[in-house]
Amino acid sequence: MSKLKGYSLPLSPEGRANIIPAPPWYYSGTLLTVEFKANPDAVAALLPEQLEPADDPGLCTVTFADWQSCSEDKHELLDPYYAQYKEAYITIGAKYNGRDVSRCAYIWVDKDFAMFRGLVQGFPKKIGSIEITRPVDIGIGGPRIEKGGQLAANASVGGRRLMEARIQLEELTNIGSSLGRKPLHHTRHFPAIDHPGAALEELVALSIQDVEIGPIWKASAELTFFDSPTEELSALAPIEITGAYYHKIGYSFKGGQLLEKLI
Amino acid sequence: MSKLKGYSLPLSPEGRANIIPAPPWYYSGTLLTVEFKANPDAVAALLPEQLEPADDPGLCTVTFADWQSCSEDKHELLDPYYAQYKEAYITIGAKYNGRDVSRCAYIWVDKDFAMFRGLVQGFPKKIGSIEITRPVDIGIGGPRIEKGGQLAANASVGGRRLMEARIQLEELTNIGSSLGRKPLHHTRHFPAIDHPGAALEELVALSIQDVEIGPIWKASAELTFFDSPTEELSALAPIEITGAYYHKIGYSFKGGQLLEKLI
Amino acid sequence: MSKLKGYSLPLSPEGRANIIPAPPWYYSGTLLTVEFKANPDAVAALLPEQLEPADDPGLCTVTFADWQSCSEDKHELLDPYYAQYKEAYITIGAKYNGRDVSRCAYIWVDKDFAMFRGLVQGFPKKIGSIEITRPVDIGIGGPRIEKGGQLAANASVGGRRLMEARIQLEELTNIGSSLGRKPLHHTRHFPAIDHPGAALEELVALSIQDVEIGPIWKASAELTFFDSPTEELSALAPIEITGAYYHKIGYSFKGGQLLEKLI
Amino acid sequence: MSKLKGYSLPLSPEGRANIIPAPPWYYSGTLLTVEFKANPDAVAALLPEQLEPADDPGLCTVTFADWQSCSEDKHELLDPYYAQYKEAYITIGAKYNGRDVSRCAYIWVDKDFAMFRGLVQGFPKKIGSIEITRPVDIGIGGPRIEKGGQLAANASVGGRRLMEARIQLEELTNIGSSLGRKPLHHTRHFPAIDHPGAALEELVALSIQDVEIGPIWKASAELTFFDSPTEELSALAPIEITGAYYHKIGYSFKGGQLLEKLI
Repeated sequence: MSKLKGYSLPLSPEGRANIIPAPPWYYSGTLLTVEFKANPDAVAALLPEQLEPADDPGLCTVTFADWQSCSEDKHELLDPYYAQYKEAYITIGAKYNGRDVSRCAYIWVDKDFAMFRGLVQGFPKKIGSIEITRPVDIGIGGPRIEKGGQLAANASVGGRRLMEARIQLEELTNIGSSLGRKPLHHTRHFPAIDHPGAALEELVALSIQDVEIGPIWKASAELTFFDSPTEELSALAPIEITGAYYHKIGYSFKGGQLLEKLI
Repeated sequence: MSKLKGYSLPLSPEGRANIIPAPPWYYSGTLLTVEFKANPDAVAALLPEQLEPADDPGLCTVTFADWQSCSEDKHELLDPYYAQYKEAYITIGAKYNGRDVSRCAYIWVDKDFAMFRGLVQGFPKKIGSIEITRPVDIGIGGPRIEKGGQLAANASVGGRRLMEARIQLEELTNIGSSLGRKPLHHTRHFPAIDHPGAALEELVALSIQDVEIGPIWKASAELTFFDSPTEELSALAPIEITGAYYHKIGYSFKGGQLLEKLI
Repeated sequence: MSKLKGYSLPLSPEGRANIIPAPPWYYSGTLLTVEFKANPDAVAALLPEQLEPADDPGLCTVTFADWQSCSEDKHELLDPYYAQYKEAYITIGAKYNGRDVSRCAYIWVDKDFAMFRGLVQGFPKKIGSIEITRPVDIGIGGPRIEKGGQLAANASVGGRRLMEARIQLEELTNIGSSLGRKPLHHTRHFPAIDHPGAALEELVALSIQDVEIGPIWKASAELTFFDSPTEELSALAPIEITGAYYHKIGYSFKGGQLLEKLI
Repeated sequence: MSKLKGYSLPLSPEGRANIIPAPPWYYSGTLLTVEFKANPDAVAALLPEQLEPADDPGLCTVTFADWQSCSEDKHELLDPYYAQYKEAYITIGAKYNGRDVSRCAYIWVDKDFAMFRGLVQGFPKKIGSIEITRPVDIGIGGPRIEKGGQLAANASVGGRRLMEARIQLEELTNIGSSLGRKPLHHTRHFPAIDHPGAALEELVALSIQDVEIGPIWKASAELTFFDSPTEELSALAPIEITGAYYHKIGYSFKGGQLLEKLI
């Protein structure tokens, strides 16, 4: 396809039309994370055969994130429809070749470019609506980032609520959930056109660079999952809340590693 | 209507269903404002007969605002769909009884509660889409609040772009546009049911309390208005940019003043 | 306000910017209606003091409607963002001066112009998301309008499901729910700016002209209401389904009647 | 990935969570198509190296489509958020091995499931907003399907208008645009994770089964493309309108044919 340019469809004469340009991609965001224990069997049931359960096999996190991102030329930052998005996702733990890893089991995002960028990375993104309280430092139209500050977040799809979280800030801490520090191991998957299986299936590892993390607040939390005919969240319903964290993060994504070509 | 409760429709047995609860309303937001000169005749054509042109008769501002707000019990802050909204609006100057005042000529907002709350205050709100670059202080997925930082904003309705602004931060200043400090004088207007005129028309003055303003950045700016068959923005097209400002603000709204009952 | 034109805010030099132009308004739509019995006390609790309970005091309908509408010059039909909307609403019965009337208790709509047009008519409209199965007559991507055809509808706000209905078409009938034929008696209500009460409150009767109704299908139905902190639907939860109907309708609205000026 | 079920991400224990289930997919929709001539060089510039320009090298169509679709168990038809979507797309002609074929150059759709389903088929789908006038047969809130009936359609992304069409129905005809009858030849493309190129690139041919077409109306048309920094539509701007058509269609998609594995 020599004449057509672009990193992703639509390939085009000038290469401007593609839904996302090539990495590197730069991210700045705020994460509201609740760590919890789910049924270990339900977590294990989400692992592909290349991965084994983690040492703490029921440990999960749900994260509600408010992002601004851009590509190399940063044009998105001056066209903010293409820079800003919110997402909510469930991360689980696993082991790969004896090493502790993590994996995004489910994720919803509110923009198409972020959905496709996620699919390239093996994030199983679907479009949803995400709402997250925003702290303020001027006025009283929001909580302050201070002990006792309360924030809420939720995710919904097609008018069905999927998850709700509430946190209350307690104190600064040095470190967030351990799951957030383990490398993401995802399955990139793209269906075939001529049979009902996949045309591409790859186990990949993602890494991020230039990571910068703002002050991390520890929090108490409530977390509720709801049933939906198009989701399987109920199986992961929180049994015990083991932590909650609120912080800003910045990083670059410059590519991942192909671990195993499965198809 | 003795049995039904609520500040606004729908009135209901418990008073929870109303689209907005009674004031006070508390706001925290970030404002990107561009001050410009438009054709003075076009500005004058937007004034009701109770108001006269300002001393600087073509002076206008356009503001792109990202808000979080709540009512007295602050329940909206933990149900953020009902707290967050963005809006874009044009403010013009005028005189009322010899006093300098301001007036919102046009405004678009992205949530129903904010639209109705505005209508109560005489803001002529319609629903639109507003996008505003967000500064960051962690990572590079956004501009920093510093000299040279660039932000963009735009407003659209029904898939038609109405306005676009770009600013570049220059330096801290002590004061924003003079228009932003003059009391808003609006016409509350509600059509009649049995004839094509109004059932209610009132000239009102709005005041805000507990005003808190963050550091104000002065900026250079570009501003473009676009044609639309459902808007009349073209008449106000910027002739000269006279300033641009970026800052946070917090305030309370506890009610306005009825100046003249017109109908 | 002699120089400014328009039926509703924003009044403007040309009168094009207003959120809605003056009546007449012309409507063509498809209605999926489920008639049910709710707790009569809950229905009575929704009546203003000018109205008394109906003879069948718990009778209600919920209607999911897919509309296309326009004003006198019909420009909206060639700018379909301004013509199409969906809504969902609860109608209850009542008596006014001994006459059988109806009343819309709650209603959600997905466009601003329809919300404001409703407020003028005393419909207590808020913005929501409404989904309704569409019958087809070509292909199998939808049910046919025939015995056994199944359709579903739902309404949601802010990611919370409010109501779900499913119907199965049974046979053509001559007449829909009796509630749909009783004149709507609404309370137009607009808050004051200088105190927490209303500045305008009117009991009005709405009538429609040029009514044209397509073939009416009778149906069996299921109907579920869900809890929400911002709604009071639970009190009206269906106790018994008494009918369901599916049909097209067209009409004109040219104005209503002011029955009582309450404020 | 033996334990996980589903046709597409997210693969899950029950196989319900995937963004789309496996084919067959069933479609019923209404198409508003304008056929036009663009600069042949601009059309040629959109062809991958496996395809050659068509005999009529500048011929294109733009189609605005309102769809309802479902998968084998048809559950989407009773959960209409997952069944209904609108899309707008540009089709160009080409030759493959001497045979006349067609190709979707650009396409915008308003739901995630339709976007992903399209990507599987090599449609270069992005999310956008599409508006299409709907004809009516009851009331006057819409045009009638009859000589002189006028319909409009447009597509927008991120608050930028991309395309607008208006048609006026003239008479029934036996056949629509010739481009619509040539088999779609698409490039399925999925980026790699470890380098900026593709991990999968395939030339595929799509075919549809069980095609049912309703009465086809011929129409006169106007068509306008607009500039956008994220699109390349301007290069395809209509030079001459050569036809316009309005009709319903139903079909099944059961899979495509892999012609060439390019990567």
